[in-house]
Formats: sequence, structure tokens, C-alpha cells
Amino acid sequence: MDLIQHSDSPRYIRLHERDTVGVVINAQGVAAGSRFADDLEAIEAIPQSHKVALRDIAAGEAVIRYGQVIGYALRDISRGAWVTEQQLRMPDAPALDKVPGAATAGAGLEPLEGYTFQGYRNDDGSVGTRNLLGVSTTVQCVAGVLEHCVKLARETLLPKYPNVDDIVPLIHSYGCGVAINAPDAVVPIRTLYNLSRNPNLGGQALVIGLGCEKLQPGQLFPDNDAMTANQSEAEWLYRLQSSENGFSGMVEHIMGLLERRLEKLNQRRRETCPASDLVVGMQCGGSDAFSGITANPALGVAADLLVRAGATVMFSENTEVRDGIHLLTPRAASAEIADALVHEMAWYDQYLARGMADRSANTTPGNKKGGLNNIVEKAMGSIAKSGSSPIAGVVPPGERVRVKGLNYCATPASDFICGTLQLAAGMNLHIFTTGRGTPYGLAMAPVIKVATRSELAERWADLIDVDAGRILSGGVTLEELGWEIFRLYLSVASGEKTWAEKHRIHNDLVLFNPAPVT
Amino acid sequence: MDLIQHSDSPRYIRLHERDTVGVVINAQGVAAGSRFADDLEAIEAIPQSHKVALRDIAAGEAVIRYGQVIGYALRDISRGAWVTEQQLRMPDAPALDKVPGAATAGAGLEPLEGYTFQGYRNDDGSVGTRNLLGVSTTVQCVAGVLEHCVKLARETLLPKYPNVDDIVPLIHSYGCGVAINAPDAVVPIRTLYNLSRNPNLGGQALVIGLGCEKLQPGQLFPDNDAMTANQSEAEWLYRLQSSENGFSGMVEHIMGLLERRLEKLNQRRRETCPASDLVVGMQCGGSDAFSGITANPALGVAADLLVRAGATVMFSENTEVRDGIHLLTPRAASAEIADALVHEMAWYDQYLARGMADRSANTTPGNKKGGLNNIVEKAMGSIAKSGSSPIAGVVPPGERVRVKGLNYCATPASDFICGTLQLAAGMNLHIFTTGRGTPYGLAMAPVIKVATRSELAERWADLIDVDAGRILSGGVTLEELGWEIFRLYLSVASGEKTWAEKHRIHNDLVLFNPAPVT
Ligand SMILES: [Ca+2]
Ligand SMILES: [Ca+2]
Ligand SMILES: [Ca+2]
Ligand SMILES: [Ca+2]
Ligand SMILES: [Ca+2]
Repeated sequence: MDLIQHSDSPRYIRLHERDTVGVVINAQGVAAGSRFADDLEAIEAIPQSHKVALRDIAAGEAVIRYGQVIGYALRDISRGAWVTEQQLRMPDAPALDKVPGAATAGAGLEPLEGYTFQGYRNDDGSVGTRNLLGVSTTVQCVAGVLEHCVKLARETLLPKYPNVDDIVPLIHSYGCGVAINAPDAVVPIRTLYNLSRNPNLGGQALVIGLGCEKLQPGQLFPDNDAMTANQSEAEWLYRLQSSENGFSGMVEHIMGLLERRLEKLNQRRRETCPASDLVVGMQCGGSDAFSGITANPALGVAADLLVRAGATVMFSENTEVRDGIHLLTPRAASAEIADALVHEMAWYDQYLARGMADRSANTTPGNKKGGLNNIVEKAMGSIAKSGSSPIAGVVPPGERVRVKGLNYCATPASDFICGTLQLAAGMNLHIFTTGRGTPYGLAMAPVIKVATRSELAERWADLIDVDAGRILSGGVTLEELGWEIFRLYLSVASGEKTWAEKHRIHNDLVLFNPAPVT
Repeated sequence: MDLIQHSDSPRYIRLHERDTVGVVINAQGVAAGSRFADDLEAIEAIPQSHKVALRDIAAGEAVIRYGQVIGYALRDISRGAWVTEQQLRMPDAPALDKVPGAATAGAGLEPLEGYTFQGYRNDDGSVGTRNLLGVSTTVQCVAGVLEHCVKLARETLLPKYPNVDDIVPLIHSYGCGVAINAPDAVVPIRTLYNLSRNPNLGGQALVIGLGCEKLQPGQLFPDNDAMTANQSEAEWLYRLQSSENGFSGMVEHIMGLLERRLEKLNQRRRETCPASDLVVGMQCGGSDAFSGITANPALGVAADLLVRAGATVMFSENTEVRDGIHLLTPRAASAEIADALVHEMAWYDQYLARGMADRSANTTPGNKKGGLNNIVEKAMGSIAKSGSSPIAGVVPPGERVRVKGLNYCATPASDFICGTLQLAAGMNLHIFTTGRGTPYGLAMAPVIKVATRSELAERWADLIDVDAGRILSGGVTLEELGWEIFRLYLSVASGEKTWAEKHRIHNDLVLFNPAPVT
């Protein structure tokens, strides 16, 4: 590792005029005795992305960042000191029966017209950004055989059908050995139902089942479903237990089913679609204190542009919005939507309490190393992704998004569960911000990865698609970066490959199953 | 499909002299009016593996199979009728505060000496049946990069190290986005800890982490761990976030780590080990009414042989033993072990209740089609795997087995979760019985698959390793089949490949996480 001597002068960023702390920007942090431009002196060494006290803070006094209370001082903190987790008492989460109601200014933002991308139009009106052959499964039992077939088909069939981007088996650990009638089982079941309908899968029904499992293929494609209406069951469903010739019979049959779909999908061509056909899911993972300063606010600007262009954009991660819920309910487009937001928070509070955990379980050691002291501070940075648009809808976990505009898709913060639930919601494009760095990818949608810091973007040049650290180095404004991301949405949606796609790396689908296994 | 006309005469099997029902054996079932050898007449058509009433059963009367009550007649059932789920009320589960205590005859079974296999002896005294390079992971974030590397290493490195059987990444969805301090989080964490120590992985510590995740590598290999004691951290751990060169840096580093371990593992040779070094995990999945007549009792005979040979053998599946717990506690080798059995059942009752489910959630549509009316009937067939030995130990989920002999490894019945927990317990060989048929396999241990019916064994000749249906066709006795399976344990443990291994098909590791995600 080259140790580059940074000669830049000590700098911090203050996000809101009420803030009593600033965030140190310098890549190497600042040494004790360093003086910032406003003459503030760091009285101890402070690492990059950690907080410096902008004035003396007395024990018991609120510590303010983003104009919000992120904690109360446990002891006196001197001006210029490093503000750490140990010095703060975390505030209680906002009481859900006291959050302000919907108060959105009626008008909304000025429409943005004329932006388009090249997408794959589906029969149901949705648009794919990729042309994928998806293979739904009812149960983990089929995974070994199906993965064998997909590997074989990638090698022997896919080259013959160049307009098809990939074959994606929807492998999961649900489907049997689970309490399928427990009240919360509705979540994983509707997730699988909606994943099969993701716009990037081209509306082709294909299910591989075992035969004796609890989750039955009819729960994914019920009688008279539009996707299977003109097909016999044998055209969209194969149960391994029907094989008359063991493994080789299974392989032969599945390869035939795959090839018939590849033939169909290969006929498809991209066509010009308005930006309003985009369904963008936003997420953060491996966050640091810059997430809420650079990458997430840039996504917020781009989200406002998407909303103005008539598109759908989702933010998520229950435990990361819980502490900012009082800032979100006033943005709900109606009283019903404010209620729905509160309902999802209350359900999640209860879910965590049942397992004897709470929202503080969210914050990771890496977050803390990155300068995020607690979930309150993390939440303020996380919800910056939502921009300033009214919240037009709330999507319960596993459900499909129903209205255009900004939606809250209620998911756990786990990167893979959140990504999976956003795919079920109908996402055709994913964007992911990271401060600490992760090679995250999804098989069913392109993932644009945004670094919060230039240092990460440079070090991981073959993984990071967007360097949001340029906001700090002064190269671009937040507004400019928002527009850059908006344009990137359109070009990636049109087929430009993200880094994760170029390497063909992706993570697993992970279902959210709040119900027991058996 | 060839429709073979079966001319065999109507046959049923009665398992216990108290039984008031028999199980139809004929592959095509029996037609209405068919007469069995004892002059019983089937008064309606009865499918194979379903039950026939052996005498008139009055409404309210107990229906007996395996000498145990499997239900109470909801209405009068005539002699010769098909006994179906709709006619039975399920008995309550045995009250856990009233089960009989330990009452095992002290002596135990006669020792069996001189049986050996060719295995890989590990430093800790355990023995591998395969020579696998296992790669532990702390978090799902690393899955995409690691799978890329493993694929590449299988193609470019593995052929150079022919004594190594395979490279197995221990991919899972745990590690972050989870409530890592919730009380029940101990289960997945200790599972990952013990999976890294499975005897088939040769005692080589290798962990790929991200860097900012909640589950830290030190939780898998704490300071002064025997497996890492003589190594620097850089020798056994790589965190992706330490890459100075993005994806290509990660790949280069991981490929180097893999090759160094392949070099070491390639030096290993099989040596003669006593049968007592076997750690066999038993499981059933996709069960039918023959599971409890053919395959499971044959495993029970083989389990007694393993115990006599001084080996370790585990049965599992909480919801499938719950209703037979009163038959198991008297077999506990001590009062403490009986208490431990009851404790695991009580914990699981509570776990299910918390999710508003109960043990009845276990039974699948396939089980019912296969003639298993409810969980009580299924349980009686499932515990037949345990044979007749005293229960020498109880292994809580995720823990390692500590005593030789017959152990109850407390796991959910889910095939993948049970298999994963048995691997964590230290299993070096797995056996799996199936009536309906499943292509189940594990990456970390050979899986011997046993069909309950000859029809399945013949139809799936390239998946089923043992045909237990021969017990019904009269070809072999239960005792003979038990010995055949015992000998197969020794040869598969010595390197003979099972069908799943020949095809290289396997299922995912699936962790049991009773705690919430965040
Ligand atoms: Ca996040
Ligand atoms: Ca996340
Ligand atoms: Ca996988
Ligand atoms: Ca079972
Ligand atoms: Ca099972």
C-alpha cells in the first residue's frame, strides 16, 4: 500500500446550521492541534468521517447533526474534541402514536419530460432493463439439479441465444420444513409470487418443483393466471418427482424447458421507453459517516428527478428509518400513507421485540469505525436517499409497488433481504451506496454501486460505478452528481453493464421469513 | 411411461399386534372388493402405502399403528375401509411434564469389533471421509466474489491437486443485518463455528470476511484457537475490504490462499480407521407411509450396529419426535439426558408458539398423499431410525456431538437445516431416507440416499443408493438390510462415491436462525 502524504488542510463539514458537531473530511483524519479554516482547533486526533465538537457541549445536552438530536452528552465535551459513541446516550425512538400526520404541499415537483431509455416491454405493461430467463422454484430440494442444468445451459445453450442476458434460477431456502400456515408465512410466499413476476424476467412462467413440498406451484401461478393462461401445466411446470428416469430424466426435461424459453426470449428487442417505466430500488450497506453526506443525498437528488420524470423509486430499511419516522410522516401524500408508514414501523418494532432485540441491533462494528455512533445518526444519513418528494406509497414486505413516485418499501436493512424484497416489489434497476465497501450484486437486476469516498472509488475502480466522494473534493456539486446518477440510470437501464455484471458476481436471493421453520 | 400390469395379490403390512390398521403394500394399491390373504376385504379402493382398517372402529375409538395411538375416529370406520386424514382427530402431544424418566437397561448391546474404513485422520483426532478444502465466510456479502474464485480454482487449480476431493465455500445468509446480540443468535453463530471444524474439512482454517460485518472472524477462530495457533492472521483470514485493488485484488489474494491450502491437503492420505470414528447423521425427507416400515427401521438396525461398533450416530427432527417423546425418554442413558430431551422439545414448542404455529405444521401435502395422515403417524415412523440403543447424548442445535453412541441432535425437520446442523455437530457421513423421492445432497459430506419403495429405487436408479423396498418384496430381511447399510457406511466412508457425489449435485447450507433479522 502506497502511503500518500496528504497535504490538504484540515477540513470538516457541517450539514445543518443547528449542528453542534462537524464531520472530518481529510482522508488521513486530523492530528491533535490541527486548526480548521474557521480557527476551530482539534484538541485530539480525529479519524476521517468521525465527528468534531463545534462548541463546548455540557453533560446532558443534545448533540445535533442533520439538525436532529443524535444523542445526549454523557459528560462534558469540549469544543474541538472527538465525539465518540462512549460519550453519547442514544435518544428513544420517536413514539409512533405521536408522529406528525401527512402535511405534504399539494403541488409536488415540476414534471421532467423527454427522458427515455431502451427497455424490454412486457405484456403486463412493465419494462425490463435486462432480458433474463428466470426459473422459479417452490423449494430448496430442487436446487442441486436446477443449478446443474443452469450451468450446463449457460455453457451449451446460451451462446445460441445472444439476445438473452442470462439464466437465473430463483433458489431459496423456503418452501418446505416451514410453518406454511403461520400468520407471517404470507411474507415469504408473496415474495416468491412477486419475484416470479419481476419485469426483468420477461413474463415467462417456469417453475421447477419437487412434488411433495408444502409450497405448491399453484401458489406462484394460480389457476387462470395471466402468465400461464394459454399454456398447459406441462409447459410452465416440472416436478422432479415426475421423472421416470431419475437424474438424467430430470436434466433432459429441464434442458428442453429452458431451450423453449430461450427461443422465445431471444426474439425480444429493446424499444424506446419513457423514464417513467423505471422502477429503481435504493439501498445502502457498509455505511460510514459520509454515506449521509455524499452518496445518499446524491441519490436523493436523483430520486427527485425520477419522481419528476414520472418513474417509481423506492427507499427501504425499516431499522434505518425508524428513528426518522417523524421526518417522513409529514411527507406522506395522504393520511392513509402516513398511517401505513407508522403501521410498518410498529409491526417491525414488535417483530424485533418478539426476538428480544431492538433497532439498535442494526449498527455494525464497521459503521462505528466509520464514525456512525448509533442507529439514530445512521438513520438520518439513510433517509437522505429519499430526497424531498412526497411519499406516494408504502409497499409491505413481499408486495408489489402499486403507485409511481417515491415509495417506502418496508424491508429489513439486511442488504440481501432488502434487495430481494425490492425485486419482488418490481424493481428493474438497483442502486447501492457504500462507505466501507462491498462487492454486492444481484442476479435479477443491474446494481449500480456508489462509493461515499473517493479513496474507496479509486481503490476499487473495478467494482465502484460512481464516486460520490467528488462532492467533498469539490469536483462536483450534489446537484450535478444527482443528475449524473439520473443519466446513469437511463444508460444502465438501456443495457450498459455495471461492474458487478461485468464480473458476473452476485449475491443470493434471501427471503424474509418472520415465521418459524419446522 | 410403461404401464406394467401388476398381478401380485393384495397385501398389507401390520407392524404391531395391537394395530387396528394395516398399510397396503401393492404398487398399484388395491381395488374395491380386493381380498387380502387373511380374507379381509377392501371395501373401497386404497392407494399404495395408505391404511386399511383391520376391524370396525367406532367413532371416538383410538386408531392404533406402531402399537401407538395415531388418532381418534371422528366417525365409525368399517373393517376394510380406507382410513384417511378426514376421519381422524389428532391426539394431543405428550405433556412434557409427564413423560417417563430414564429407564435404560444398564448393559447395552454387545460390542462389534474389527470393522474399519479408510479415512483422513485430523490433528484433533476426528476423521474425515472426504478431503475437502472448506472456506468459511462471516457474511453473505462475500458470496459473489468467493463463488467466482471457487469456480476458477475448480477449473484451474483442483486438477493439479488430485488428492483433494473438492473446494467447498461455506456460504450462508447470516453474519450481518441480523440481531447478533439477541438471545437466540447463539444458534447460528455456534453453527458457523462448528461447521468450520467439520472433520471433512481437514482442520484447515480459512475465513473470507468483508470487514465491517457484525459477525467477526474471531467468533469463528478466537485467539489461541488450536486451528490457527501457529499461524499469523494473514494466513487464515482475508477481509475483502482490505483489497487495495478492487475485485482483481480480491481474486488474486483468494486464489493464493486457496492454492496454499490445496498444496497442504494434497499431501494427505487415507489410513485405516476403526468404525468407531464414524459420525453418521440420519434424516428422512419426502416421507411416505413406507418410510416407517422399510427404510427407517433398516437405518435403526444399522444404527444399533454403529453403536455396537463404538461409532457415533445421530437422529434428529424435533417436530418428528415430539409425539414420540414418551417412547424416547425411557431410553435415555441417564436422568440428565432424559431432561435434556424434554428441554429441547419444550424449547421448540415455545419457538413454534411464538410464531403462532405448532408441530402439525410439519406434515406436507406429499406426506399426506403418501399415506401419512398426521404428525403423530409421521413421528412414529421417523423415530424408527433410532433403533434400540440407549440415547447417550443430546446435541443442542449448532453444538458439536460430545459422546459416542446414539445421540439426539435437536434440529428442525427441514432437510437442509437438519443437514447443516448435523454437519456442525461433526457428521462425516449422512444417510437420508425418502419415500416420495428427492435429489438431496450436501457439499460437505457424502449423502447415502435410501428409497422406501423399490418402484422409486428403480425409477431413480441414478439417484437412489439403497433400495429398502426389498424388505416388502421379500428379497431381504430388515436385519440383512441393516447389515448391508452398515457395510455401505464403511465403503462410502472409505471413498466410494454416492450418486449425488457422482453428479456433483448438492443443496445449500441453511442456517437455523431463530433470532430476528434487522
Ligand atoms: Ca443501510
Ligand atoms: Ca442495507
Ligand atoms: Ca448458491
Ligand atoms: Ca423427516
Ligand atoms: Ca427432514
